[in-house]
Amino acid sequence: MSAECLLSAGIDIGGTKIALGLVSRDGTILRRQSFATSREFGDAIAKMESAVRELLRAQSVDVSALAGIGIGCAGPVNPRTGVVNNPYTLPGWDGGNLIGSLQGRLGLPVYLENDADAALLGESLAGAACGFDPVVMLTFGTGIGGAAMNRGEVFRGAGGEHPEIGHLPVLPVGPPCYCGRAGCFESIASGAGIEKAGAAYGFQSAREVFTLAAAGDSNAKAIIDQALEATAAAAWALLHSFLPERFILGGGIIDDHFQLFADAVRRSIDAATMVPRNQITVARAVLGNDAGLVGAASLAFRDAH
Amino acid sequence: MSAECLLSAGIDIGGTKIALGLVSRDGTILRRQSFATSREFGDAIAKMESAVRELLRAQSVDVSALAGIGIGCAGPVNPRTGVVNNPYTLPGWDGGNLIGSLQGRLGLPVYLENDADAALLGESLAGAACGFDPVVMLTFGTGIGGAAMNRGEVFRGAGGEHPEIGHLPVLPVGPPCYCGRAGCFESIASGAGIEKAGAAYGFQSAREVFTLAAAGDSNAKAIIDQALEATAAAAWALLHSFLPERFILGGGIIDDHFQLFADAVRRSIDAATMVPRNQITVARAVLGNDAGLVGAASLAFRDAH
Repeated sequence: MSAECLLSAGIDIGGTKIALGLVSRDGTILRRQSFATSREFGDAIAKMESAVRELLRAQSVDVSALAGIGIGCAGPVNPRTGVVNNPYTLPGWDGGNLIGSLQGRLGLPVYLENDADAALLGESLAGAACGFDPVVMLTFGTGIGGAAMNRGEVFRGAGGEHPEIGHLPVLPVGPPCYCGRAGCFESIASGAGIEKAGAAYGFQSAREVFTLAAAGDSNAKAIIDQALEATAAAAWALLHSFLPERFILGGGIIDDHFQLFADAVRRSIDAATMVPRNQITVARAVLGNDAGLVGAASLAFRDAH
Repeated sequence: MSAECLLSAGIDIGGTKIALGLVSRDGTILRRQSFATSREFGDAIAKMESAVRELLRAQSVDVSALAGIGIGCAGPVNPRTGVVNNPYTLPGWDGGNLIGSLQGRLGLPVYLENDADAALLGESLAGAACGFDPVVMLTFGTGIGGAAMNRGEVFRGAGGEHPEIGHLPVLPVGPPCYCGRAGCFESIASGAGIEKAGAAYGFQSAREVFTLAAAGDSNAKAIIDQALEATAAAAWALLHSFLPERFILGGGIIDDHFQLFADAVRRSIDAATMVPRNQITVARAVLGNDAGLVGAASLAFRDAH
C-alpha cells in the first residue's frame, strides 16, 4: 500500500438503507452518503460505485487514495466468496457476489463481513471493544445479531462462516423460530420476538410492550421478563463457550433499555462459578449506527497495514 | 532455539497418575515413564524433575537437547501464571506454581495448559484435529473435558482461562452440579453423572448402566438416552457459538461407545439450519491416553518454532 492510502470506503448494507462513508485510519467518518436499498442487485452495485466516486470527488482525492472498500452486509453472507445469501432481508440479491462485482468496477480490493461482525470491528477500532479479548457483541434490533472477536480477529466457524449466536437455545419450549427450532434467543428477546409475543394481547409494537411493562401492565411485564431471562440464559451459554472478557450490547432496543439487559447479563456472570467473574464486564456499544460503517471500512486497513 | 533442540518433554498430570515422555517434533513418544500422583506439591515437583533427568540419561542426551517442558494438568489451572487451582482432583496442590517450580530446577522454559486443551493440541499435531479449524474436543470420562482451537491456537477466554464447556446448560432442570447450577452437560453425560443417575436404581457403575441399557433394561436405557440428549443439546449450543468444523470425541466412555455419542452430535448438526452442515464432521480421538502427553510436549515446539 502506498503511503497516501490513508482512507478507506466503508459500506453498510441493510434491508432498507445503504450507508457509505470515507473513513480515516482512526475510525473518523470524513464524508458520508446514504440511499434506499435497491431490490435489484445490479442496480445496487451501480449505485454503490457512483456513491464511492462522488464521495472521492467531494473529498478531492483520487481512487488511489483508498486502501480498499469494506462492506458490512446483513447476513448470511460468505466473507470469503463475497456471495449474499439472505432471502429474508435482501430478497432480490440472493447469489449476488458483492466482492466480485465491486472489485471489477473500482479496481480496488473489496472486503466483506456480515453486519454484526462489521459493527464489532467498528467497536474494536474506536469503541467499546477496544483493548478487550475475547469480546462478544449482541445487537438487539428486529433480530439479534451476535458477533465474536478473538486474538484481534473476527471469529470464524466452519466454512469461514459466522456463528449464529441469535439461535442459541435458551428456553426448552417457546415460540417457533424460522431456523426450525423453538426457544431460540432471537425468537424471544429480539424486537420481532417481543412484538409477536405482545400481539397476543393486542399490543402494537415492541416499543409499546416496553412502555406498558414500565407502567406496570402485568402481561407486558411478563414478556419483557422473559426476554431478559432469555438474555441471561444466552449469556450463561456464552460464558461457557466464548467466555468473553467483555459483553457489548448494542442496537435500537439497547439505546433505550441498556440497563435492563446489562443487568440480565451481569446476573449470569455473577452466578457462574467456573469463570473469572471479576474480569468480565458488560458495556454499551458507543458507535451506534456508525459501528457497521466504521468496522467495514477498517477491513481494508486491517489487510493493508 | 538451537538446531539440536529436536525433543520436548511432555508431562500429563492427572489425579491418580503423572505420565512423562520425551517427544519428537512429529509427535512420537521416544521414551516414557509414569508414577502415582503425589498428594504433596513439592514432592511431585521433585519427582517430575528426576523423571525428566532419567529420561534424558536413558536417551543419552543432555538437557540442552530439550526445546522445553510442556505440562498438561487436570484443570482449572492458569496457563499464564502456572498456578494450580483444582481442589477436586489435586487437593494438596492448591496454589502451587508448576511453571515457576519446574523452570528453576531444570533451567528450561516450561509451558502449561489444562489437560483437555493439551489433549486437543496432541490431536492437532498428530491426530484427528490435524487440518481442521475451528475444532471442539469433548472428552467423556469421570467428568467432561471440553477444549476449543481456533486459527491453530488453543481458545482462551477472559483472564486467559479455558471455557468450561462441561458446564454448558443442557436441561432446564436436572441434577445439581458442583458448579452451583442444575442441568449441566457434565452432570448428565459424564461417567460420574451416569453413575449417579444409575445409583437410584441400584446400578453400581456407569459401565453397568451402559451394559444394562444395551441389554434392554428400561431404566438404564432412559439414563443413557438422557446422556445422549444432553450431548446433542451441548452440540447444538456449540454449533451456535464455536461452530466447529470438526467435533472430536475422546475419553474412556468414547472408547466403548463412540458411535452412540457421535450419532447424537450428528443429529444436531443435521437438524441445524443456520450452519454449513455438510462442512462439519464428527471424529473419534485417535491418540487415546497419549494425547495429553503429546500435546503438552508440543507446547515447547510451538513457542520455539
